[in-house]
Amino acid sequence: MELLQYILNHIEDVSTSAYDHARAAFSALAIPSGSLGRLEELAIVYAAAKGDVNHKIKHKKVFTMAGDHGVAVEGVSAFPQQVTMQMVKNFLEGGAAVNVLARHIGAKVIVVDCGVAADVTTLTPSNQCGNQALKIKKVGLGTKNMAVGPAMSRSEAIQSIEAGIEALEEELQDGLDIIGTGDMGIANTTPSSAILAVLGNVDVDTATGRGTGLNEESLQKKIRVIKKSIEVNKPNPHDPIDVLAKVGGYEIGGIAGLCLGAAHHRIPVVLDGFISTAGAMIANALEPRVNRYLIASHVSAEKGHKLMLKHLGKSPLLDLHMRLGEGTGALLGINLVEAAVKLLHEMATFHDAGVSKPCQK
Amino acid sequence: MELLQYILNHIEDVSTSAYDHARAAFSALAIPSGSLGRLEELAIVYAAAKGDVNHKIKHKKVFTMAGDHGVAVEGVSAFPQQVTMQMVKNFLEGGAAVNVLARHIGAKVIVVDCGVAADVTTLTPSNQCGNQALKIKKVGLGTKNMAVGPAMSRSEAIQSIEAGIEALEEELQDGLDIIGTGDMGIANTTPSSAILAVLGNVDVDTATGRGTGLNEESLQKKIRVIKKSIEVNKPNPHDPIDVLAKVGGYEIGGIAGLCLGAAHHRIPVVLDGFISTAGAMIANALEPRVNRYLIASHVSAEKGHKLMLKHLGKSPLLDLHMRLGEGTGALLGINLVEAAVKLLHEMATFHDAGVSKPCQK
Repeated sequence: MELLQYILNHIEDVSTSAYDHARAAFSALAIPSGSLGRLEELAIVYAAAKGDVNHKIKHKKVFTMAGDHGVAVEGVSAFPQQVTMQMVKNFLEGGAAVNVLARHIGAKVIVVDCGVAADVTTLTPSNQCGNQALKIKKVGLGTKNMAVGPAMSRSEAIQSIEAGIEALEEELQDGLDIIGTGDMGIANTTPSSAILAVLGNVDVDTATGRGTGLNEESLQKKIRVIKKSIEVNKPNPHDPIDVLAKVGGYEIGGIAGLCLGAAHHRIPVVLDGFISTAGAMIANALEPRVNRYLIASHVSAEKGHKLMLKHLGKSPLLDLHMRLGEGTGALLGINLVEAAVKLLHEMATFHDAGVSKPCQK
Repeated sequence: MELLQYILNHIEDVSTSAYDHARAAFSALAIPSGSLGRLEELAIVYAAAKGDVNHKIKHKKVFTMAGDHGVAVEGVSAFPQQVTMQMVKNFLEGGAAVNVLARHIGAKVIVVDCGVAADVTTLTPSNQCGNQALKIKKVGLGTKNMAVGPAMSRSEAIQSIEAGIEALEEELQDGLDIIGTGDMGIANTTPSSAILAVLGNVDVDTATGRGTGLNEESLQKKIRVIKKSIEVNKPNPHDPIDVLAKVGGYEIGGIAGLCLGAAHHRIPVVLDGFISTAGAMIANALEPRVNRYLIASHVSAEKGHKLMLKHLGKSPLLDLHMRLGEGTGALLGINLVEAAVKLLHEMATFHDAGVSKPCQK
């Protein structure tokens, strides 16, 4: 708890002076005012987070947080639990979607075992492309079944958040300008929907979607399981750690930790989809200052994600009907932020380019 | 007319077998079915256009088509006409938004003078970054004022389309896998709105927006000018060359030519915003087979763009409230297509990765 408490006490507001400088810099560029739309906003948000209008994006990393879920025994996912471990192996071999997109944008994939229900220490990252690494921050061998009791203890919940903070801080020394969040965990839309329902005060039926592809019958079962989990555990909506412990997951806690740690170190966080945003909701509930370091990459096809983004006051950059997780949407979002920052830094001004200003306002 | 007629007669349908192969290849990848959303669709569209599921994207070029407009004398733009020439210079010096984004995604900028109202032959591209080039395909020194008569003659309209075809074909020898369209031309939202009104059968008030930032009074004047242009010239909505000649522009014809030439050579075309889509409407009206080679990158903040996309049956990839033109949106779109194609080519299958398939459908 010491690490978490320290971080919570040491998250600063974003810089209003860098924000104002960036906005002023855009108005001098040789383009019609506002014509870059949300790209302008992205560059300004980045400058405000860094506290420096000239800060470039060099080091980009996506953290794919992995964990298993006891609630999988209830049949709430279309895939068997061993897929979590198999996909961790795939991430380390560089064959997953997150790896392809990371190579595409020049980012590194940091796979973090927050609580996979198997021993992953035998896996070693392929050095073929050298853009993936593994960290072991295991809190447990999967959570317990939240439909019959708490997913984890309160101290495990804190440990999972601190796992995310530690993973982030260990990557600082190599340089880290922006991060993406990502997730892997069979059944993890179930705790994410529960978190949305409790922290967002949303009806469980509205908060619950088909995950990786449930049929109607299985969806109804999933809704019953989430309702039961909330009834059995009675998570306190005013205590985000209680919510995480009772109806959350280790990798969701890890994502919350990433958000908090990144905000403390003034590193913008590009959120992936439904599970990542559940983690961000925990972080935001613990310390609302984190909010202005968060950028929503996309809106997932998973029902309920829109409501999470609304809860956080975020408008997604992309709506491509993706629902894969891993950090795939976050990487596309990072690429847009980088484009925006380059526009701010590299474009000529009206004066430099000898371009006439508008005759009319 | 010979070149244009040849191209119109030699545009083939996209490949249904490559389309089917790409779709089947996606279903073998180690991801939940459909979870990559529209990225899957993009890779399939690309494969179908190329007629080859294995075709990689190596050579990317954006064509920024420049031209001036006689109708500018009516006061329909917030910027003075000399900005077209000044921006061509800026493109060649590498300081414009299109240059920054082209460098970001590894594309080259081909600036084409289709009809700037000044001599651009004195300008030379900066070799500092080596990613921009200039082509002179000048049809005239700006169009005539369409509010008092045709913007150009029928033969000039054909010449402007052929300028686009030629520009495209000259770039084939260096390799060309995908192109983006772009535009520069003070006052060119005015002819674009007129084209939407005539070819799309849309009310002029609905088709007309604020361009680079008109105030309400100037917007009302612009609407009156467009209405007058259509009344004076009576463009025939069933004759796209007549529409281009009477209420179009040289760079808009050039964009139509790019679309047609690219489709003939099986090169997918990523459309930029309002002006580019006006050019695509001309191309699509001349030969509907072109349609399946077209990808809409974004929906512009310019009023009326949504209606153009609807007319073409296209759903934009991005909605970032951009309204700059130049090819900026197209470049962001090309980057997404490239990401999609890499996912298809580089991801592991369920079998390769040893990942279990879903237990439920």
